[in-house]
Amino acid sequence: MPDLIRVTVWNEFRHEQQDGAVRAVYPDGIHEAIAAPLRRRPDLQVRTATLDEPENGLPAEVLESTDVLIWWAHVAHAEVCAEVCERVHARILEGMGFIALHSAHNCTVLKRLLGTSCRLKWRDIGEKERLWVIEPGHPIAEGLGEYFELPCTEMYGERHDIPPPDQTVFISWFAGGEVFRSGICYFRGAGRVFYFRPGHETFPIFGDENVQRVIYNAVRWAAPVAGPTPVFGNVEPLEQLRADG
Amino acid sequence: MPDLIRVTVWNEFRHEQQDGAVRAVYPDGIHEAIAAPLRRRPDLQVRTATLDEPENGLPAEVLESTDVLIWWAHVAHAEVCAEVCERVHARILEGMGFIALHSAHNCTVLKRLLGTSCRLKWRDIGEKERLWVIEPGHPIAEGLGEYFELPCTEMYGERHDIPPPDQTVFISWFAGGEVFRSGICYFRGAGRVFYFRPGHETFPIFGDENVQRVIYNAVRWAAPVAGPTPVFGNVEPLEQLRADG
Amino acid sequence: MPDLIRVTVWNEFRHEQQDGAVRAVYPDGIHEAIAAPLRRRPDLQVRTATLDEPENGLPAEVLESTDVLIWWAHVAHAEVCAEVCERVHARILEGMGFIALHSAHNCTVLKRLLGTSCRLKWRDIGEKERLWVIEPGHPIAEGLGEYFELPCTEMYGERHDIPPPDQTVFISWFAGGEVFRSGICYFRGAGRVFYFRPGHETFPIFGDENVQRVIYNAVRWAAPVAGPTPVFGNVEPLEQLRADG
Amino acid sequence: MPDLIRVTVWNEFRHEQQDGAVRAVYPDGIHEAIAAPLRRRPDLQVRTATLDEPENGLPAEVLESTDVLIWWAHVAHAEVCAEVCERVHARILEGMGFIALHSAHNCTVLKRLLGTSCRLKWRDIGEKERLWVIEPGHPIAEGLGEYFELPCTEMYGERHDIPPPDQTVFISWFAGGEVFRSGICYFRGAGRVFYFRPGHETFPIFGDENVQRVIYNAVRWAAPVAGPTPVFGNVEPLEQLRADG
Repeated sequence: MPDLIRVTVWNEFRHEQQDGAVRAVYPDGIHEAIAAPLRRRPDLQVRTATLDEPENGLPAEVLESTDVLIWWAHVAHAEVCAEVCERVHARILEGMGFIALHSAHNCTVLKRLLGTSCRLKWRDIGEKERLWVIEPGHPIAEGLGEYFELPCTEMYGERHDIPPPDQTVFISWFAGGEVFRSGICYFRGAGRVFYFRPGHETFPIFGDENVQRVIYNAVRWAAPVAGPTPVFGNVEPLEQLRADG
Repeated sequence: MPDLIRVTVWNEFRHEQQDGAVRAVYPDGIHEAIAAPLRRRPDLQVRTATLDEPENGLPAEVLESTDVLIWWAHVAHAEVCAEVCERVHARILEGMGFIALHSAHNCTVLKRLLGTSCRLKWRDIGEKERLWVIEPGHPIAEGLGEYFELPCTEMYGERHDIPPPDQTVFISWFAGGEVFRSGICYFRGAGRVFYFRPGHETFPIFGDENVQRVIYNAVRWAAPVAGPTPVFGNVEPLEQLRADG
Repeated sequence: MPDLIRVTVWNEFRHEQQDGAVRAVYPDGIHEAIAAPLRRRPDLQVRTATLDEPENGLPAEVLESTDVLIWWAHVAHAEVCAEVCERVHARILEGMGFIALHSAHNCTVLKRLLGTSCRLKWRDIGEKERLWVIEPGHPIAEGLGEYFELPCTEMYGERHDIPPPDQTVFISWFAGGEVFRSGICYFRGAGRVFYFRPGHETFPIFGDENVQRVIYNAVRWAAPVAGPTPVFGNVEPLEQLRADG
Repeated sequence: MPDLIRVTVWNEFRHEQQDGAVRAVYPDGIHEAIAAPLRRRPDLQVRTATLDEPENGLPAEVLESTDVLIWWAHVAHAEVCAEVCERVHARILEGMGFIALHSAHNCTVLKRLLGTSCRLKWRDIGEKERLWVIEPGHPIAEGLGEYFELPCTEMYGERHDIPPPDQTVFISWFAGGEVFRSGICYFRGAGRVFYFRPGHETFPIFGDENVQRVIYNAVRWAAPVAGPTPVFGNVEPLEQLRADG
């Protein structure tokens, strides 16, 4: 893990500009609400980027200097330009960590990484969610209790059309009767991917201390490893081959 | 598992038409070499399809009546039309089995299912491969010995840039010094995906009895299950929610 | 899969003999309640065995002629003799399927297979459980809806101290606020292991049609595969080694 | 991860006392050869323990102050007293990391964690092994090349009778024709388990820089996480249950 982890918090940043109710909850944008508690961590260096910036805020030099990219999006997945999605995807395979939050379950990059539709059930009436820690030994569970609650949240329910997760850290219980794998890990290329269910544009989820802790833990978990760079393509034999085959 | 499994063997079918050396090995096309031993199985109903047929041989009615799709391709991945790839991908998520052979490691559908580059090492000088059965209790290993050999084959070597397989059935040893996860299973949507490494346009791999047995086993393993059809989207609560939250 | 799957349903059979309330629900014993619907399946051959029979009902010849062993137990795990546990464990590694039901989460054989404490939360007040199918493409989900309910059941809750399951088919929601991975698959040796949470000595769970269907599906899924028998121990090289290393 | 990781290197320490050829390679014992390079790491605090010490060198206070336990053993697995095995196993479930090296594939604690026979093929004639990094993004691969070689080693070959690993980091190629999953990770309770194949009593494997790097990486990876302590047993409902069920 690098000594200083360079984090970029990306936000679609549309709701906050178009809808007063959202702006009232997140006056500086959801990205700032996510970034603020991370900025208080001495092992992280944090910046933000948003959809309407040039190159969607993610030119090559930003991605190349990003260790972990956090992604929040909801209504404008299709507006992220294809080239930026391609570049983000390629950087993840190279080793950049990727943390997709809440409605980013449906973003282009995550769907491309997972290969499925990522569809799910949802209900937006503000019910109780209880997130159970399924793997207490996982680094993303550090510092948490065995469960935590969000009193008023949007429900996401199974079947969530995703590949079997490589690791499942949280399973949610919802008051309305559903369950959800709400903290899941995937390994893609040399990169680590974490999807975390909580987060919403009007419920003030990103102010919750447990949610903040999970995101911090996930950043640390997803930071790149200085592993080998494989050679691909046509290669010479490493062993001398016998004439007899 | 259905009583009669409907199999479609898809082949790019270019090498055989353009190159006499390939045609000498597979005069009726690689698809027929794959299909012939499957046609002798009473529990399978087998047809073939090729790239240059209308809609790449895979119109909607063919896919809808296919339980398991076998895919061989090498030089023309980019010529499969986007809509057909989309349709095949969607059918796999609905439950159709998908078996990708050899150089189909690089086909659009498999890369889309796996989310990674699928790059690997290769060397095409005809060396010995020994496939070890890593999971003797897996249905795809039925009827095999603990290993089998291909005396003269193209090498594919690790690092293969794929997600951690959901199940690994075979690992190959190559005379030139490499190893490869050569029989791997993934679950995507309601569908089962098997990638099998052996197969080549000039080495007569599809005439090998062990290779034929693996493909037959994989067809049976990948056949659709009559499981539930999940509801996606906005749903009503199943439990009455309390006023107090 | 064998054409006729030989199933042995093993039951501790103590509650039913000692407690009138249990006997009222399961007058012929829980084993008979589990076995009866399986006996109606033409692809299964079903017998039962209980703790107080000689060799706990599982002499070598019974195990050797069992394809899938179903296990219900609660209060007498420690009374199964060590040699029988050893024999059952060895047969599973050889390929016999093993289905552990409800309080068998704590039986010697399952704990030995899983290597963890298998401890969990529980509450026995008869609350509602809703089992969600997480993998609609899994053979154990065949014929089910996307969830099913047990109106009155004992709760088992996470954290369940088990290894990450090789496959997770069901996750339960409980009215009292917990979740549970209630249908989970493990591969051990050449054998397949399924743990299914529902089942209780006084709630009439084994009369539920969905529960019966899951157990039938699990029997079929767990049936042995005629795969290779690996050689273990000191072996000769398969390749001639060079003098130079 | 703790700032200072407390490592205990445990060694059977019999070969070195009984056999001059082993003593010539490892004059201070295999434990010292493993410990020496770890002692040069400022983030580790390292001690050793051996079989013939009181309580096999692992009294409760040693285990309680151990974050990661490294285990080398070969001929005396059965001499580790049952109570010590029990205690080590319990501490791993609590979160202590466990690294089993080479012939420790057959030690009581590892077999208990994995639940299988852990049998394998072997051949002790000093042939070449090449370890391929299968997951370049895994922390245990940090600082390595895409493969490394051991010119003269004992062979271990598949089928290795183990559960499907939770993560596979290395696969070995052997000159004599076998392959082996030689660096594998398991999660058991709150603890992390790594099995690493290389290591031998007369081939000087523990002097190899790549082997030393892998063991260091594994120690860091296996260090305990300060996650939640689950409550087990009978619990009260978290939600008020309705009279209507």
